[in-house]
Amino acid sequence: MADSAPPPVITFLSDYGLLDEFVGVCHGVMTRRCPSASVIDLTHAIPRHDVRAGAIVLRSALPYLPAGVHLAVVDPGVSGVGRHARRAVALRTVEHDHLLVGPDNGLLMPAAERLAGVAEAVDIGNSPERLEHVSRTFHGRDIFAPVAAALAAGEPLSSVGDPLPERELRRLGLPSAQLGDGVLTVHVLRSDTFGNLILDAADEQLAALGAQLGDALTVTVAGVVHTARYAATFAEVTPGELLIYEDATDRVALAVNRGSAAQLLGVGADDELTVRPA
Amino acid sequence: MADSAPPPVITFLSDYGLLDEFVGVCHGVMTRRCPSASVIDLTHAIPRHDVRAGAIVLRSALPYLPAGVHLAVVDPGVSGVGRHARRAVALRTVEHDHLLVGPDNGLLMPAAERLAGVAEAVDIGNSPERLEHVSRTFHGRDIFAPVAAALAAGEPLSSVGDPLPERELRRLGLPSAQLGDGVLTVHVLRSDTFGNLILDAADEQLAALGAQLGDALTVTVAGVVHTARYAATFAEVTPGELLIYEDATDRVALAVNRGSAAQLLGVGADDELTVRPA
Amino acid sequence: MADSAPPPVITFLSDYGLLDEFVGVCHGVMTRRCPSASVIDLTHAIPRHDVRAGAIVLRSALPYLPAGVHLAVVDPGVSGVGRHARRAVALRTVEHDHLLVGPDNGLLMPAAERLAGVAEAVDIGNSPERLEHVSRTFHGRDIFAPVAAALAAGEPLSSVGDPLPERELRRLGLPSAQLGDGVLTVHVLRSDTFGNLILDAADEQLAALGAQLGDALTVTVAGVVHTARYAATFAEVTPGELLIYEDATDRVALAVNRGSAAQLLGVGADDELTVRPA
Repeated sequence: MADSAPPPVITFLSDYGLLDEFVGVCHGVMTRRCPSASVIDLTHAIPRHDVRAGAIVLRSALPYLPAGVHLAVVDPGVSGVGRHARRAVALRTVEHDHLLVGPDNGLLMPAAERLAGVAEAVDIGNSPERLEHVSRTFHGRDIFAPVAAALAAGEPLSSVGDPLPERELRRLGLPSAQLGDGVLTVHVLRSDTFGNLILDAADEQLAALGAQLGDALTVTVAGVVHTARYAATFAEVTPGELLIYEDATDRVALAVNRGSAAQLLGVGADDELTVRPA
Repeated sequence: MADSAPPPVITFLSDYGLLDEFVGVCHGVMTRRCPSASVIDLTHAIPRHDVRAGAIVLRSALPYLPAGVHLAVVDPGVSGVGRHARRAVALRTVEHDHLLVGPDNGLLMPAAERLAGVAEAVDIGNSPERLEHVSRTFHGRDIFAPVAAALAAGEPLSSVGDPLPERELRRLGLPSAQLGDGVLTVHVLRSDTFGNLILDAADEQLAALGAQLGDALTVTVAGVVHTARYAATFAEVTPGELLIYEDATDRVALAVNRGSAAQLLGVGADDELTVRPA
Repeated sequence: MADSAPPPVITFLSDYGLLDEFVGVCHGVMTRRCPSASVIDLTHAIPRHDVRAGAIVLRSALPYLPAGVHLAVVDPGVSGVGRHARRAVALRTVEHDHLLVGPDNGLLMPAAERLAGVAEAVDIGNSPERLEHVSRTFHGRDIFAPVAAALAAGEPLSSVGDPLPERELRRLGLPSAQLGDGVLTVHVLRSDTFGNLILDAADEQLAALGAQLGDALTVTVAGVVHTARYAATFAEVTPGELLIYEDATDRVALAVNRGSAAQLLGVGADDELTVRPA
């Protein structure tokens, strides 16, 4: 018994929230198709229709998730028809053979790129695994969940959809931090409910600037110069002071102790800032 | 190993919310009694004490759920004593042998009727599977969860309760849409937080009127005539316009794009409307 | 097959909430380390940083949970360094061999004491089971979850941490109800969002006063005398009246029907009251 294969894993991320039965119904559909699967709810609190936020969370979480199928549904284009229709896709990554299932709106691609890109992709819009009746708006239940479960049950990609050239997959065009000559150029990925600004930089890029915890750094936005403390915790700076820190999910962020960095700096998603030693 | 039986499934719906440990404690009780069970949280966000809303969600979700035990707890009468006490019951449906467990306040019956009715029922108020100490208000933990788990573990209905004639089970008296001569008479099941009105009609009943997507339909309520567009998505009508559509859970609904249909029509639960081609 | 061992269980309590992916990521980490484990979310809605509330919920829930590993993370001291650092610990209880994992800030101790105390404890701050990179603030993911999963997978305590004398574990110093000569001296454990006051008394202590349902009791706080009805449900008292009752989780509580007991009595956590027959 001790050597029996572990149950297949499906992780599930969406913007469905927990105020309706949508998530539970998708669990039901998956368990019907693959009764042995273990389904992990990664989060269902992605802001409604925020594909980029979903993509960033999925990419950040991936290193902590077991190999398996990753179902992600943030799908503002679900009701599109004809030339406005978005594709539904399933992908296999180059590294570690993770399988990703969701709408072809860029949601899955940052995660795939973290695993060296897409080795194989299929269009699942007409998958034989779809439920018999496909509704207009609930493709999570009718297409994505049953396909994810079929893959968890061991079906190959080729039997759940039609081959799709990797170059046809939609990308998000996320900004990307650049390290230049003593200057780190960063962008705001998103601002959270407290006005903290999540940046596209990694801790190592700050280290490459020569920055150490406790240092003062210069943050320039639209020609205006601010000073930020490179700190481990909010408590290390005085209320109202700007700090730059590694957040709980390994992303570099800007915050104001008991205040809003978004408001202080007057920036939002995609805005560019530079960081250099003070 | 590949041929081993799949784990038994318990689905769980309630109005407990997720701000307390009530749901988690019920999971604990079920896992103690049936360690191999896989428990699917259908939803715990049924509005507090809204038996009808719980009954409708359970009935709608059922076709998407695996065969197994369905535990549902929306239980305003839990503290009743003597002749005000509500029964606690477990049922087996005629079709597919689904097992339903919950209070005998009508919550389970629409789901049972979708599966051709009740084949067998037992009163579990004094079930030998109850926990040793039964509290006054938390029967989910003390009666329903342990009985659901015992059934998942393979106990027959007859060993978890006392036989109960099917005709003694309480019904909700939900309204029911009627298709007449070119007129569909419908009722409001409930109004959601956006003022969208969930009706008791199915898409096929609109089709039977001859209605096609894009058509204008006449909606009459208390003698007042409105025009509604039969649409697939909100975006197909102008702001302020009334639309009739199939919602994500296959129910026909009325809405106002960026407005409230409940307010526009001045109706609520149980109110009757007629729909006909314009 | 029927005799195969049940899957190991990990229960999980935290103050992470469900608005981020923190809980889902911890599930991922646990499933990677122990794929056969069944993880039960006890609750993630403990008020942020409220160690006492987490401790009380864990202690109350324990009798309803299966034997296994209980992971609890309410961790205001996570960012402390040097002499301000709090320890991370894993414990085995004297009775039933439950395993408890979490920060050494008192969170685990009331639960352990309910099971006759701590039989063995280890410091897991430098556990070989930690993730390779330990972040500054997310020890749930980096230390506690992987250690809990290793224990669920069968690792002995001695291989996940360094021995720690039981007397060095931090206690919370929770108040404790005292039954004197016809007087029950109680304390407020916490006040909930409705202003209901959860006390440290058990139902049997009220019974030992000779109190029966329906009786009037005298509640004295800071010299001011109030009368409370000992009732099973709120409906038994008139709006505005004070009642004393056993809540859904077996704790004695004070409430005002359609009002706030915290406001009426002017008390909060740790305050002392006396209860006696009127």
